[in-house]
Amino acid sequence: MRLRMEAFIKEQQKEIVQQLEKLDGKKFRIDTWTRDAGGGGISCVLQDGNVFEKAGVNISIVYGTLPKAAIAKMRANHKKIDTSVDSLPFFASGLSMVLHPHNPMAPTVHLNYRYFETENPDGSINTWWFGGGTDLTPSYLFEADAAHFHRIIKAACDKHDKTYYPRFKDWCDEYFFNKHRNESRGIGGIFFDDLDDQEKDQEETFQFVQTCLKAFLPSYMPIIIKRKDMPYTEQQKLWQQIRRGRYVEFNLVHDRGTAFGLSTPSARVESILMSLPLTASWRYMYEPEKGSQEEKLVKVLQRPRDWIRP
Amino acid sequence: MRLRMEAFIKEQQKEIVQQLEKLDGKKFRIDTWTRDAGGGGISCVLQDGNVFEKAGVNISIVYGTLPKAAIAKMRANHKKIDTSVDSLPFFASGLSMVLHPHNPMAPTVHLNYRYFETENPDGSINTWWFGGGTDLTPSYLFEADAAHFHRIIKAACDKHDKTYYPRFKDWCDEYFFNKHRNESRGIGGIFFDDLDDQEKDQEETFQFVQTCLKAFLPSYMPIIIKRKDMPYTEQQKLWQQIRRGRYVEFNLVHDRGTAFGLSTPSARVESILMSLPLTASWRYMYEPEKGSQEEKLVKVLQRPRDWIRP
Repeated sequence: MRLRMEAFIKEQQKEIVQQLEKLDGKKFRIDTWTRDAGGGGISCVLQDGNVFEKAGVNISIVYGTLPKAAIAKMRANHKKIDTSVDSLPFFASGLSMVLHPHNPMAPTVHLNYRYFETENPDGSINTWWFGGGTDLTPSYLFEADAAHFHRIIKAACDKHDKTYYPRFKDWCDEYFFNKHRNESRGIGGIFFDDLDDQEKDQEETFQFVQTCLKAFLPSYMPIIIKRKDMPYTEQQKLWQQIRRGRYVEFNLVHDRGTAFGLSTPSARVESILMSLPLTASWRYMYEPEKGSQEEKLVKVLQRPRDWIRP
Repeated sequence: MRLRMEAFIKEQQKEIVQQLEKLDGKKFRIDTWTRDAGGGGISCVLQDGNVFEKAGVNISIVYGTLPKAAIAKMRANHKKIDTSVDSLPFFASGLSMVLHPHNPMAPTVHLNYRYFETENPDGSINTWWFGGGTDLTPSYLFEADAAHFHRIIKAACDKHDKTYYPRFKDWCDEYFFNKHRNESRGIGGIFFDDLDDQEKDQEETFQFVQTCLKAFLPSYMPIIIKRKDMPYTEQQKLWQQIRRGRYVEFNLVHDRGTAFGLSTPSARVESILMSLPLTASWRYMYEPEKGSQEEKLVKVLQRPRDWIRP
C-alpha cells in the first residue's frame, strides 16, 4: 500500500500541476526535498501567476519516529494508538493542495488525501488509516458553484458508499469551523480523518480515495474558469484579503494537520505553510454592510447549508 | 489590588493614547465593551494612521469562571492552581498594546502587563500573580534602537531588583521564539509570567509593574520618532510584510496569551486579535540575499544577543 499510494499521488500531482499550468499560463516551481529523519517530498508552488496568487500542490512520503507532541495531534480518534508512549514509529504519505486565486470572485480550494501507518516495536503494522477531504472557501458566494462542487464530490462518494457523503459533509462542516469567530472557514465539502479496517478493507478504501482525488479537477476547474476573469472592485479585493485573514486564523489556530506538521521533527515548514495566502489583512471591527454580498456570505458561514437539494 | 490595578491601567491607557495621537496626527477609535460573563474593557485602536498602520492599546478587567481549556493556558507554571478542576473562578485585568508602524525601518512593539487572581470555592483569593513584559520586533535592525530599548527597560527593572532584567530578558528570548521557524519573533525585551508571593509581596510587585509600564513611552518614542519618516523601497516594504507574516505565526501558533484569550468564554475576539498587523504576506521560500540587511536581521533572530554591554 505504501508504494501504491506513493505512485498514485505522484501521478495525480503531475496531472493536476499540468492542468493548472495550462489554465494559469505560468509554470510551477518544483522542489524535491528529502527529510533528514526519513523520507521526503515534492513541493510544486506557483506564485504571482496570472490566475493564482499562490497555488501549492505538494506530496510527501515521510517516516521515522514521532515524538509525544506529534502523536497527540496525529489523529482525531486515537483508536489502537497508545498515546502514552514517548515515541512511535510511523509512515505517512499524502497529497496536499491549496489554491488561492487572485480574483475575489474565485474561491480558494483545499484538498488533502493521506495514508498513515503506525508500527509495533517489532516493525509490523500496528494500524493503518486513510484520511482526507476537500473544501471550498469563497469570498463571494455563488450558490451554483457551491452546488457544483458538492455535486461532484457526492457523486464520487456515492460510487463507494451512500453513507459517505452525508457523514463526511457534516464532518467537514464540523472540522473547518473557526470556533473563535463562530463561523465556518468556507462552504464545506467533505472531510474524514479515520477510515480504517473497522470501516472497510484497505483496498476498498484506497479505491475510494482514488475516486475522490480524481474528482478534484472536475469539481474545481469549471468554477475557476467561470470566475477568474470577472470584474471586481478595490473594495471587493479588500474583502477577499480579510477573508484570507480568517483562512490564516483557521490554519494556524485550529487545523490539526498544520499543527501535526509543525510538530513533526525535521518538518519542511515552507511546504506546510504553503497553505497560507500570499497576502492577508486584519482590519479592526470590519463589518459588511447590511444586505450586501459580503454579509450574505457571512450568514452562510454561520449556518452550514445543504448544497444539494434532493 | 483589583481596583488599584484598574485605576492604574486606565490612567496609563489614556496617557499612552494621547502621546501616540500627538505623534500620529490621527485619533484612536475608542470602544468600551462589557463581557456577558463578567467585566469588560476599553479598546483603543488607530488604523490607517499617518505613522501607524495599526495600533491597539487595550485594557480589560474580566472575571467569572474559566473552563478547563482556558485553565490549561492561563499560566506557564501552575503553582497553587488545581488544573484538574472543571472550572475555576478568576479575575484578570491588564493593559495590552501592539503598535505596527507603516515605515519598515520602524519596529513593531508589544507590551502587556496583567494582574490575575483565582478564587477558592468560598470566594477568598486562592492565588494572585502579575505577569507581563514588552518586546521589540524590527524588520530592519538598528543596533542603537535595540540598545536604547533594552537600556530603558533594564533601568526600570534595576530600580526594583537587579536580578529582574537578566532573568526576564532571558525569559523573553525563550518565550517569543517561533519554534517552527527556529528564530525569535524580534530582538526581545523582558517577559515574566508568574510574579507572586513566592517572589516578593504584592505591593512591591505592583510598584515594579508600574515602573515598567511607565517606562514604555521613553523606551519606544525616541525610536519611532527617529524611524517613522525614513525613506524606504518597495522591496523593503515587502520584507516588512514577510516579517509581519512571522508575527502572525507566532501570535496564532505559539502565544499563550492569545490562546488563553481565544479560549475564554465570551471573549472579545476583535480586541484579542488587534495584535495582528493590518497586512501580512507569505511568499514561498523567500530568502534574503547574502550579506543584505535582511539577512543580518535573520541572523540576529537566530541567536539572541545581549544588547547592553557592561
